[in-house]
Amino acid sequence: MKFKMSSIITRPDFQGEFTNSILAAAASPDIISFAGGLPNPVSFPIEEMEAATKKVLEDKGAIALQYSSTPGYPALREWVAKRYETMGVYGVKADDIIITNGSQQALAMVGATMIDPGDEIIVEDPTYLVALQSFHMYSPKVLTVTMNSDGIDCDELEKTVKEHPDAKLIYLIPNFQNPTGLTYSKEVHDRAAQILKGTNLLVLEDNPYSELRFEGKSNESFGAALGDQCCMLGTFSKIVAPGMRIGWICCRNDELREKLLNYKATADLHTNIFCQMVLAQYLADNDIDKHIDKTKELYHQKAQYMMDCMRKYLPEGVEFTPTQGGMFLWATLPEGITAVELYRAALAKGVAICPGDPFYEYKRNVRTFRVNYSNSSNEVIEKGMRILGEVCRELMAKK
Amino acid sequence: MKFKMSSIITRPDFQGEFTNSILAAAASPDIISFAGGLPNPVSFPIEEMEAATKKVLEDKGAIALQYSSTPGYPALREWVAKRYETMGVYGVKADDIIITNGSQQALAMVGATMIDPGDEIIVEDPTYLVALQSFHMYSPKVLTVTMNSDGIDCDELEKTVKEHPDAKLIYLIPNFQNPTGLTYSKEVHDRAAQILKGTNLLVLEDNPYSELRFEGKSNESFGAALGDQCCMLGTFSKIVAPGMRIGWICCRNDELREKLLNYKATADLHTNIFCQMVLAQYLADNDIDKHIDKTKELYHQKAQYMMDCMRKYLPEGVEFTPTQGGMFLWATLPEGITAVELYRAALAKGVAICPGDPFYEYKRNVRTFRVNYSNSSNEVIEKGMRILGEVCRELMAKK
Repeated sequence: MKFKMSSIITRPDFQGEFTNSILAAAASPDIISFAGGLPNPVSFPIEEMEAATKKVLEDKGAIALQYSSTPGYPALREWVAKRYETMGVYGVKADDIIITNGSQQALAMVGATMIDPGDEIIVEDPTYLVALQSFHMYSPKVLTVTMNSDGIDCDELEKTVKEHPDAKLIYLIPNFQNPTGLTYSKEVHDRAAQILKGTNLLVLEDNPYSELRFEGKSNESFGAALGDQCCMLGTFSKIVAPGMRIGWICCRNDELREKLLNYKATADLHTNIFCQMVLAQYLADNDIDKHIDKTKELYHQKAQYMMDCMRKYLPEGVEFTPTQGGMFLWATLPEGITAVELYRAALAKGVAICPGDPFYEYKRNVRTFRVNYSNSSNEVIEKGMRILGEVCRELMAKK
Repeated sequence: MKFKMSSIITRPDFQGEFTNSILAAAASPDIISFAGGLPNPVSFPIEEMEAATKKVLEDKGAIALQYSSTPGYPALREWVAKRYETMGVYGVKADDIIITNGSQQALAMVGATMIDPGDEIIVEDPTYLVALQSFHMYSPKVLTVTMNSDGIDCDELEKTVKEHPDAKLIYLIPNFQNPTGLTYSKEVHDRAAQILKGTNLLVLEDNPYSELRFEGKSNESFGAALGDQCCMLGTFSKIVAPGMRIGWICCRNDELREKLLNYKATADLHTNIFCQMVLAQYLADNDIDKHIDKTKELYHQKAQYMMDCMRKYLPEGVEFTPTQGGMFLWATLPEGITAVELYRAALAKGVAICPGDPFYEYKRNVRTFRVNYSNSSNEVIEKGMRILGEVCRELMAKK
């Protein structure tokens, strides 16, 4: 039978189609894949989680398996609220936190709550591709602001904000951005905050990677300078485990938070309470900072190793921006070669990368690509980069 | 700060406001509440779940805590596909099943995938109130068809279907409907299937309570007669535990299923895989039918007890339709008294009921109300019904 589906779901979805085809190809067990973005399972606290599940089911099983409330489990919301002090944001209350099915759901909630068809929104260029897809569901007009190696381009930001006073929201990933791995410098951060302050924009700060800083000091969250103008997204996916799908949105604006909750209630009533309680128990019984330190050590070593291999094997003309945290590196090919050409040629030799294209709202056939280091062994990183270097050389020789 | 939010989220939400105020009042520990709809925690298999979580984390912890795929855990999808044979639907494949965050999420997925603003959809009158709220997010024109004591009014259904050939979907709860507890008779079921067959309508069958039939035999699922025209929703919330938020949609239409998956990927990537695997392990290691039998026995006894109390304590003129399953009873007050009046007067005496109003798309100040029996002790049921009877008598004396 042929159904007449909604216009929103039947529109072309460049991001979705592009990424699905890449991830399908990269999933073959013969392929060395730097295309995905998985945490390393070595970092999952499996035994501690087993102890936590046992405790929750024995002590509070009837609550953990029952329906629960839309905002989430109080003890977990309290932990998250308190955690904001490490990001320079004080006075966050447990009531400000809504627990979501991963921070991905928070993006959809904000989209539904803020965007009418045709409304303007502002994003970094490039930006997280599933955020673009999620916003697209609400038919906004997407305005883009270039990401430089020290963060968002502030001149362009200022111009965009000035020329579009009715834009609804701006979506920022200021720390170790996916895809670029880039972080705002202190100067860029402070100037961006100044530009955004006092505008009508909801500032949506996505911050999945800031806890994974290998060295140096993070900027404060934008919530410190911008107060209730800034909604802050977070997740346990990168610091504990993504399989439980526990993220959050910190919204200190009462009116907006009420509407976010109304939307979530119709979307799925509430986030699974069993996993929320297990996570809260895990956090109460373990030193999360020690755990994060171990993960950072692992990823730092892998990032260093991949950067060393890139310097060693990639030909001159292929550039990348060193990173100090997160899970990704971002490289740029010399003029004349597109990332999709590299992707195809490398895949034929058994290595998958993620071309930059789907991370841009408008740009196509770009020269940028993303590689992930968190989930590969050193041997695989070295072998993959050696092959990638050979393929780059071949492509450059042909031009 | 004051944000300009989306028009969809700032519209009046009668269902939400009405229900929130009722549930808030009913939540007080001094109140006897028949207003909610919670399963009885006595029925939760806590020890078995503890064994299942231990096994999953020990054997497959690195998979259970990692990112996973949007459609869901293969073993769980296989179990659900096979289960449809008990509902008369054969040949369902694991690939036809998408695991969702409770069946509530499946409603939102279908809404997003099928409804453009202004599209017509058809629902039972009354119907599940959070389904109405979820559909409202997509701005449909809602057409209603009366529920009689033997199921949907087929003459009205035939007329509505004929006069609205472009209606997108019809949402049906044929077994122990929430709110009414009513079930379609065999005659009504077969005639409804005949009316719907060959139309352009997507038939969305919601079936959370069919496994909780105390006696007699269920009708086949509409999927048996209607093939891929029918999407079937289901949930583990009423037969195992709601806290894990595991439901599903069975969609045998390839094109629609692909779009449902696209939507879910942007909504939250995937349902928590840890709970999916725990549930699959629980189902593999335990006799679910034996477990359901125990729950049914419990609820049957409670339903009987509540019906006995209603016959004993409610005055003549207050009517209710006996049920053979599910979690609810539906009563009608004599003319001249509204359910909201009863709600207010009863609450003042310490008993909460759920007035019928939010379950209707258009009707207000109705005389119908819902009472839940699954989660109260016999003592509480008796005391509550005695008070409710007194309040009814007082209200009737005043008229």
